[in-house]
Formats: sequence, structure tokens, C-alpha cells
Amino acid sequence: MATHAAHAVPAPDAGTRAMRRAVELAARGLGSTSPNPVVGCVITDASGTVVGEGWHQRAGGPHAEVHALRAAGAAARGGTAYVTLEPCNHTGRTGPCAQALVDAGIARVVYAVPDPNPQASGGAATLRAAGIDTTAGLLRAEAEAGNTAWLTSVRLGRPHVTWKYAATLDGRSAAADGSSRWISSAESRADVHRLRAEADAVLVGGGTLRADDPHLAVRGIDGATQPLRVALDTRAGLRPAARILDDAAPTLLVVAEDADTRHLPGVDLLRLPLRDGRIPVDLLLAQLYARGVRSLLLEGGPTLAGTFLENAAVDRVIGYLAPALLGAGPAALADAGITNISHALRLDITEAVRVGPDLRITALPATAPKEH
Amino acid sequence: MATHAAHAVPAPDAGTRAMRRAVELAARGLGSTSPNPVVGCVITDASGTVVGEGWHQRAGGPHAEVHALRAAGAAARGGTAYVTLEPCNHTGRTGPCAQALVDAGIARVVYAVPDPNPQASGGAATLRAAGIDTTAGLLRAEAEAGNTAWLTSVRLGRPHVTWKYAATLDGRSAAADGSSRWISSAESRADVHRLRAEADAVLVGGGTLRADDPHLAVRGIDGATQPLRVALDTRAGLRPAARILDDAAPTLLVVAEDADTRHLPGVDLLRLPLRDGRIPVDLLLAQLYARGVRSLLLEGGPTLAGTFLENAAVDRVIGYLAPALLGAGPAALADAGITNISHALRLDITEAVRVGPDLRITALPATAPKEH
Repeated sequence: MATHAAHAVPAPDAGTRAMRRAVELAARGLGSTSPNPVVGCVITDASGTVVGEGWHQRAGGPHAEVHALRAAGAAARGGTAYVTLEPCNHTGRTGPCAQALVDAGIARVVYAVPDPNPQASGGAATLRAAGIDTTAGLLRAEAEAGNTAWLTSVRLGRPHVTWKYAATLDGRSAAADGSSRWISSAESRADVHRLRAEADAVLVGGGTLRADDPHLAVRGIDGATQPLRVALDTRAGLRPAARILDDAAPTLLVVAEDADTRHLPGVDLLRLPLRDGRIPVDLLLAQLYARGVRSLLLEGGPTLAGTFLENAAVDRVIGYLAPALLGAGPAALADAGITNISHALRLDITEAVRVGPDLRITALPATAPKEH
Repeated sequence: MATHAAHAVPAPDAGTRAMRRAVELAARGLGSTSPNPVVGCVITDASGTVVGEGWHQRAGGPHAEVHALRAAGAAARGGTAYVTLEPCNHTGRTGPCAQALVDAGIARVVYAVPDPNPQASGGAATLRAAGIDTTAGLLRAEAEAGNTAWLTSVRLGRPHVTWKYAATLDGRSAAADGSSRWISSAESRADVHRLRAEADAVLVGGGTLRADDPHLAVRGIDGATQPLRVALDTRAGLRPAARILDDAAPTLLVVAEDADTRHLPGVDLLRLPLRDGRIPVDLLLAQLYARGVRSLLLEGGPTLAGTFLENAAVDRVIGYLAPALLGAGPAALADAGITNISHALRLDITEAVRVGPDLRITALPATAPKEH
């Protein structure tokens, strides 16, 4: 979009290059590692040559360091491990990575982000106790950005929530007669499948469920891990033939605790007590977190998005703005409890890029109130 | 916003550089030359050195070529004139530029855009008849882009219309209680003053006039030509103390032909017959064109914008999107007669740039229907 004059950037040193590569590797795990973080690891030998790479691919599988150590073999001895997250000290379904690095004869460990998870932290201390030169903080911001969802979820005890919407330039998500096919482009729709693949779960409200019979599974991305499809259906009015109940991906139906679900045998149900006639956002998120969901893509509709925003439960907004005007029709966002401009939910736009003919805007809640 | 890899661009030749400079010079006249176009001129001597520059500064004043010839003096003899528009052949308030170039001994004329104005065209023929090497088309697209408003107005016989709006990411122009101060940033508001300064006239509808008591004059830009402030006030309900009636800029009040305007002595009035109780957009634009308005900035509100869009009378859309969400409140655009998504007004986004914390989106009506 906006072009920038080229400017000279000093060439990164070998350590920075290795960590940047580790951050890239980590991103390959997005959407398939929860409840674990994404982690990448690059191992260089004593001369600085890359001899092993790895990333955490799925929960229960080997950690990034183990993949990289296996690739490096004997060449790891005396070498350096660049890891995006502090190596774990925790014996879970796999052994602690800190010990694996010690056993492989690694001489130096450089990691980007300290592990905030009390169950897993302490790895750096273990490494240092074994005499390994251990430093933290290289490319920390880049590595944190790659792990935003997981870091946020560990800090808040609920999934990181991305609200995704599609609208015209005048903020309409459909025309006056309800038609919305296709308000955004094929390129944007493909991009949404990428967002779904990176998320642990996708969520729609009852209005969207009834109006659109959404499918919500990932299509068109080879090897994608399907997200958990979550739909709010307070009164369990869903037809058994609904597309969301097919076997393309797992599905969780969230219903009121007293909902009659006899027509939905075999459907995975989450029963929650209603508050003011609605599924409480905080209870819903706590339950999803307990099921290992660390990142949630909120796909609609406007009412549910308003409720999430009112509950300060949106961590990222991604809007696909179609270059079109309607002048009438439902808004992309309904009541969020805001009546005066001074209470508008302020965001910071972090990115605006073309996706086909559309504009994709990414925004984060502003960290401090803005005064103009 | 999005960064781009640097790519090699061949250095432009001297002629291209001179024409690019002429296009830059032309832009300085935006907002003060109507009903004339903006024009820039660069003169190089026989050795290719720039010896004169000029641009058309205001209607009735010397044309660009004359300014440049004066600056060049005797050095113009045997030289080349680079002009963004075909030199005129027309004796109006000033003499024909084609003849001035001949008289100055210019050997070669390179112009970017043929003059579409039948009163002024023929300049190239005059130059060639005088033995001057005359070529057209260098940087035509760039020069046309700089003259879009004027070229559009000549083609359509009505002013070029830019609809400007400010809205939140969810398309609201105010909160539910009507508060909108300030929905966009100080930087965006300053940018709007630049748009006003570049326009011949600014227009607001009756709703905005009553609700906001707008001023609409340009502030904060040294040497800016004030636009004509035009307000629709069908029943002439405007108070004599309204800010739009101060002496900061000229004002034109558009009223129904039978409106009682006795309380508004001395106010410049345009009386028009109503159609379906409204000022007809086509009549309004024809009358503004007849008064020399070639570019019009439509500032609001949503109803008037809808009417203009319904009448295919918007040539450019500039939206200031504030990074905020409201979930309630009036939309930036009201009824444009569109009920089904297949009739959405499709645009092409030509630019999206940061203006302070906001995102400014420029879009043009799509030239062909889009199929997704």
C-alpha cells in the first residue's frame, strides 16, 4: 500500500539470524500445539554452522529442542542452541528439554522469552547449574509476537480472543435484505481459513448459527489442524443435519444447563448456567481454557462480538473491509454497551494490508486511553 | 504500513524529470484555478538545463507557460517547454499560450495531456504550424491524476465530487447519544482542511447544518484559497448567527424555490425546485458547475451522501477510519437505495495510509462490476 523508501539495515549477526530462523520455525506450529506454546530451535555447531532445526509440532510430541538435537546429532556437542522460549524443566508427556540440552553437550543456550508458566520454568537455572552459558532476551519482542496467543492465555487464564469481521467501508456486514454473499473477496475468505487453522477453536453465536448454517472447518490448507468448532445454542435448537455437526472437525455445542438436547445424541455439549438469559462470556472462556483452548477465533455475529467487547474479552480485531458501500443493512458490530463517544473502545491499528481487493486491518486494544 | 522490498527503478531521463517537476508544480494550483485546470510548466534551454518554471496560480492570472517563459527570459530561445496540459489556443482573460511559446522562440514542446476543452484545444496544431516540434503523452497518467477533478468535470458537465467521511472501524459516525467529538484524530481533521483547500466548494446537508452548526472554512493552511461553503437548507431554517454565514469564506445557501428567506438578508441564495421534497442532486451540481465549481467536497451527512451515491454523483471516496469501536450510533452512510448485496456500490481502494492514529482510505467507483 504505502511505499517506503529503502533504508539501510545493518546485516544481522549469526546469532540474530539463527534466532530469527527459530522464530520462523516456531510459527509453523501455530494452531496445533495447544495447550503448549509454539517454540522453534536452531542449533549451531562450535564453528557457528547451523546443524539442526526443529519446532514444536503438536502437543504430546517432542519439543522443538528435541527435534533440533536429533537433527544435529553429534554435531551439537560444544555448539549453541537458539530457542524462542526458555527450555522447559518439566517432565510431562516428554522429558525436560533443559536436561536434553545438557546431555547433548551443548555449550551455550540463547533463548528469547522467559517461560511464564510456573510448571515449566526453571530451565535456565538447570542449564546454568550444569555449566552451560545461558542468556535470555535475544529477539524477545519478535518471539513474543509469535507466541502472543499463548502468552496472553497463560497471563489471563482464558483463551486469547481474535474477533474477525467482514464489512463494507460503511461498516455493513450484509445488505438490507440480509444478503451477504460475498461481502468480502475470495482472497479474504482464504485468509480466514488461515486464521482458523492458526486458532485452537472458532466460535459463532446463535444468530449466525441459525441464519448461516456455518461450517467453520478449515478448507484449502494442506496439513492444517482443524480447530474445535464452538457454537452457542442456548436452547439447543440446532438441527441434527447442521453443517457444523459433520465430521470435518470436532464440534462443541454450548447450551443452557437445562436445555433439552435429546435430538442431538453424540454431540459434545458444554452446559452452562445462563446469566441474563445469555451464556456468560467469562464462564465460557474459562471452560474452553480448561479444555486446552489457548486461542479462539470469534467469527460472529455482531451481537456476540458486542458482548465479548463489553466483557473486555477481545485481544485482537481483524477486519476485512470490502471496497463497497451499502448504506443500509446490519452493522458488523452490535451493542457493546457504549452510548457516548468518550467510552468508545479505542484500538491501535498495527497493520493494514491488501488482501485481494479488500483491506485487512489488524488492531489491538489501546493500552492507554487516548486523548485527542 | 506494509513495507515493500526495494526494487531497482531506472533513473528517469531529463525530459521525464522535467515533466515530473511540471506535474508537481501544477499541484500547487489545486483549489485556486477553477474553472481552469491546474497546469505546470518547465522550460529547459537548448542544452537541457532548466531555465524556467511556472504554474497556473489562479483563474484570470497568467497561465503556467507564461510564468515559466517570464522566468526563462531569453534563455527560452531554442529550448524545450514541458507542459502538463496541451497549451491553449484560446484568448480569454489571457492570451493564447501556444502563441506565447512561438513568440519566445521555443524549439520543442512536450505536453502530457491533450486539452479536452473545445474552447481551448488546437494549441498543438498552432505550435506545429509554427514549425515547433510538438509531442504529446509524456507522463500522461501522472498529469491526468493531478487534474482528475477538472478533467472529470469537463467530461461530465458537473463538479468532480469527493465524499469524505469519518467513522469508527465499525462504520459509526457518532455514538448512540449523538456524541462524535472527536471521532477522528487531530491529524485527520488537519488533513480535511487540506481537502477543503484543494476543493472549489464544500457541501453539507440540512441535517448536519442543524445538528453541528459547521463552519467549513479552511483553517491552519497558509495562503489557502477558501472554498465556497454550500449548505442545503430547503426551508431556509438557518439562523442568521450560524457559523457558516461568517465572513471567513463565501457561502451559498441552497433553498427550495418558494422558501421564505426574509430573515437572511444579504445571503447568497440558490433557489431550486424540489423533487420528492428534496433538492435534486443533478440540478444542484449543474448550478454549481455554472458558477465555476469544478471540485466539490461532500462533507455530510449520511443522508446526503446516500442521495449522491444513489445518483452516481460520487467520483471519489475518502474515509478516515478511527481505530475505535462503538457498536451503536448512526452509520456514516444512510440509504443509498441499495437493498441487495448484488447492488452494492463497488469501489477500488487506491490508497490506504496512516494519518496519525487513523487510517485514511481513498477509493474510486469500480469501472466494471466485480464478480467474486
